[in-house]
Amino acid sequence: MKPGAKQAGPGSGKAPRNLPYFTKGSLLGAEHLGVKEALAIFDLARQMQRRRPKLLLEDKLIALVFYEPSTRTRTSFEVAAKKLGATTVLVYASGSSIEKGESLLDTGYTLRAIGADLMIFRHPNAGAPHLIAAHLDIPVINAGDGMHEHPSQALLDVYTMQRHMESLRGARVAIIGDIYHSRVARSNIHLLSKLGAQITLCGPPEFVPETARTLVPQLRITRTLQDAITGADVIMLLRVQKERLAEMHFNVGDYIARYQLTPERVKLANPGALVMHPGPIIRGMELTSEVADGAMSVIREEVENGVAIRMAILARALGQSRN
Amino acid sequence: MKPGAKQAGPGSGKAPRNLPYFTKGSLLGAEHLGVKEALAIFDLARQMQRRRPKLLLEDKLIALVFYEPSTRTRTSFEVAAKKLGATTVLVYASGSSIEKGESLLDTGYTLRAIGADLMIFRHPNAGAPHLIAAHLDIPVINAGDGMHEHPSQALLDVYTMQRHMESLRGARVAIIGDIYHSRVARSNIHLLSKLGAQITLCGPPEFVPETARTLVPQLRITRTLQDAITGADVIMLLRVQKERLAEMHFNVGDYIARYQLTPERVKLANPGALVMHPGPIIRGMELTSEVADGAMSVIREEVENGVAIRMAILARALGQSRN
Amino acid sequence: MKPGAKQAGPGSGKAPRNLPYFTKGSLLGAEHLGVKEALAIFDLARQMQRRRPKLLLEDKLIALVFYEPSTRTRTSFEVAAKKLGATTVLVYASGSSIEKGESLLDTGYTLRAIGADLMIFRHPNAGAPHLIAAHLDIPVINAGDGMHEHPSQALLDVYTMQRHMESLRGARVAIIGDIYHSRVARSNIHLLSKLGAQITLCGPPEFVPETARTLVPQLRITRTLQDAITGADVIMLLRVQKERLAEMHFNVGDYIARYQLTPERVKLANPGALVMHPGPIIRGMELTSEVADGAMSVIREEVENGVAIRMAILARALGQSRN
Repeated sequence: MKPGAKQAGPGSGKAPRNLPYFTKGSLLGAEHLGVKEALAIFDLARQMQRRRPKLLLEDKLIALVFYEPSTRTRTSFEVAAKKLGATTVLVYASGSSIEKGESLLDTGYTLRAIGADLMIFRHPNAGAPHLIAAHLDIPVINAGDGMHEHPSQALLDVYTMQRHMESLRGARVAIIGDIYHSRVARSNIHLLSKLGAQITLCGPPEFVPETARTLVPQLRITRTLQDAITGADVIMLLRVQKERLAEMHFNVGDYIARYQLTPERVKLANPGALVMHPGPIIRGMELTSEVADGAMSVIREEVENGVAIRMAILARALGQSRN
Repeated sequence: MKPGAKQAGPGSGKAPRNLPYFTKGSLLGAEHLGVKEALAIFDLARQMQRRRPKLLLEDKLIALVFYEPSTRTRTSFEVAAKKLGATTVLVYASGSSIEKGESLLDTGYTLRAIGADLMIFRHPNAGAPHLIAAHLDIPVINAGDGMHEHPSQALLDVYTMQRHMESLRGARVAIIGDIYHSRVARSNIHLLSKLGAQITLCGPPEFVPETARTLVPQLRITRTLQDAITGADVIMLLRVQKERLAEMHFNVGDYIARYQLTPERVKLANPGALVMHPGPIIRGMELTSEVADGAMSVIREEVENGVAIRMAILARALGQSRN
Repeated sequence: MKPGAKQAGPGSGKAPRNLPYFTKGSLLGAEHLGVKEALAIFDLARQMQRRRPKLLLEDKLIALVFYEPSTRTRTSFEVAAKKLGATTVLVYASGSSIEKGESLLDTGYTLRAIGADLMIFRHPNAGAPHLIAAHLDIPVINAGDGMHEHPSQALLDVYTMQRHMESLRGARVAIIGDIYHSRVARSNIHLLSKLGAQITLCGPPEFVPETARTLVPQLRITRTLQDAITGADVIMLLRVQKERLAEMHFNVGDYIARYQLTPERVKLANPGALVMHPGPIIRGMELTSEVADGAMSVIREEVENGVAIRMAILARALGQSRN
């Protein structure tokens, strides 16, 4: 299965005006998200933050279906839904019918039949939310599918950047770390590219394979941190999983020596550059505590903006975009 | 302990007018549920579906206590409670005092003392909700106790049948599969029998022992699927657990060959017959996908009706039956 | 790290007027809680019970973060928050970012950034809530930290005592069992001592070491149950963990023979004495069923009062103490 394929427009950067296979308002990936759609979500998020939003979703039921552990994404969506007055119902893979052998799709049908007006899905397999979305008549929001996409994270990241810089056109964004396994990186690359940012990927070949170049046009790859962040406007770090380093016979000490963002290294970036991380951060691994808590860090602001972005995503999906 | 024994009337099919040991409004099983009570719940559910119900339970606290995994029953009750404006609190056996050795009854007392106005209980042991109900002064709803009863499921099943046929009196209902281990089957058999349906049970002897005949009068047993469904108005399938087949040295392939509901076999039923299943369904096991998604299937409607039935159960239990 | 050290006033019994390191309204322990503060919480709890409280916290978000299993404390806080109209979000250690290696503090930052106005924390390590509180700008409520403190439990216990006796000054309180490992005992000892109660600790040396004497002035220790409860106004039992008995080569039978509260032994206490237990109780271990359900037992009343006390704690913490 090629995830998202059905949703694809004609390969242009334009917003697909019609989503024939998915319910309007679904958000399955950044790859096929139009620039106009993204900007509309940003506008709405800005309104959500400017004044206390009305209970736009007071008679709506939102199902949060998580087949993988999550604190920040789950609580962020849950709080966003509740702030808009929606009723929420939470389903974890463990302790559910899923253990009894029910198919993914049937779980979707069941929650729809229970009355869900919208579903938020996280799943370890790429394409799982697309499968659900292709069969249900309600919007589906992808909250992370395998190593594929995590579009709400990309939207909140780019929204955070936009609050600090006039335009992303020509902005230099360095993404550091395990890009290969990262749905956050993939979604950000798609969205940043559409908005005209100059993207540099940085990491060892196992984390940043040469094939990554094919993701979007004009992607730059480098193996050296210093090279990646010199002159950067944004440094986006990704979480490093020790297990992955071990698999590739990569030494933790080596990784830290070559790729950890330290106070010295961060000086190579442009003045006013942003340090970002989707979290959870591992202090002392991909960055030091000084950098995580330093003046350039907008890591907590990302989380804060995440609730507003998700409120906007939910309100739009349910056709309640006037606040 | 003989579950529900205390609630039993004098063995008649009549509704016990007084429930001396249990708080009025408790729903512990279909065996001792009066026909009038059931019909009143159906009426109320119909009202709930006709127009958006008022927040009848706005100042009520409902505790959902699940000692077994559940998606559909738990979310169905949770959504029902929330739609009526109730506050809910969810307790799973894992991650609770139960692990510290607290008795079932003391967990009940604790939740009562915390302010619960009603408890919904699922437990792997038959009779557990009855034990709680016998000691608490609030209504207790049995959401499944061991292999004993699952009355809200039977109510929603029969409610679903009634929406498709004029009367259940004389209607031919075939129940197929692992009836011995099924609380859903047991509750349905009791309720259908009270309403005058003609019930046929079908499956191998390990799943449908001869002693099942004693459950209600005039129960028919057959070992042949074709025999069971010929002329049936309702075909109710039950989930087959592979472990159970293995235990009884029954081959999965054999089971499928003999008992799976296929598009060909389903033609033996009456025109307009209903295919039902309490879920979670295992496609390719007890039924094919064509049947699950076919025109005769009301499997998703069962789930949908389940929320309305549970709203009715909760509203009645808390004495808020006028909508 | 010496937990709570930063919050300490000058060792006096007086309420610290300023909490320089923690947000006003935080409740981290009974040790440094002023008598005035405790009495104000009792007053507020009394109001909460007298009439249905207003939705004082209607626009507040309360995060419940539990790194340890809990039924009664978690549901009690959750119900308290919901009764005041707050939105709640629940985070368990399992199934969360915590498993991905995120630090305790970063989990705190994240939940703060998601919009939490107050955090309720339970953690197996003493001092964990203090660490969070020292870094966040919102109130933090300790819902149990290792073997250290459980202040809301002490407040509800003392509140329960006060509803049954004119004054705690000079009241004789016997605390029986595994005091060494009990955060409930520790918090109660601090609070009871401030209010002038005469405290006797009772248990084998492994459960009640001689060093316990240093906790507060004028603490009495005895090894004999009969000695402890003769003339007592309050008998507070603690849960005994079988694993702990095994570790200390203590026979369960011996423990029961020497320390179980039986109907005969309880007669040694003063007329009208209270039998208390923070729960979960193990019937047949630290007390018999006759005592647990007897006239002197206020065990369920403790749970009931717990919701009111926690409503008071939350309302005060968020500056909404007028009802």
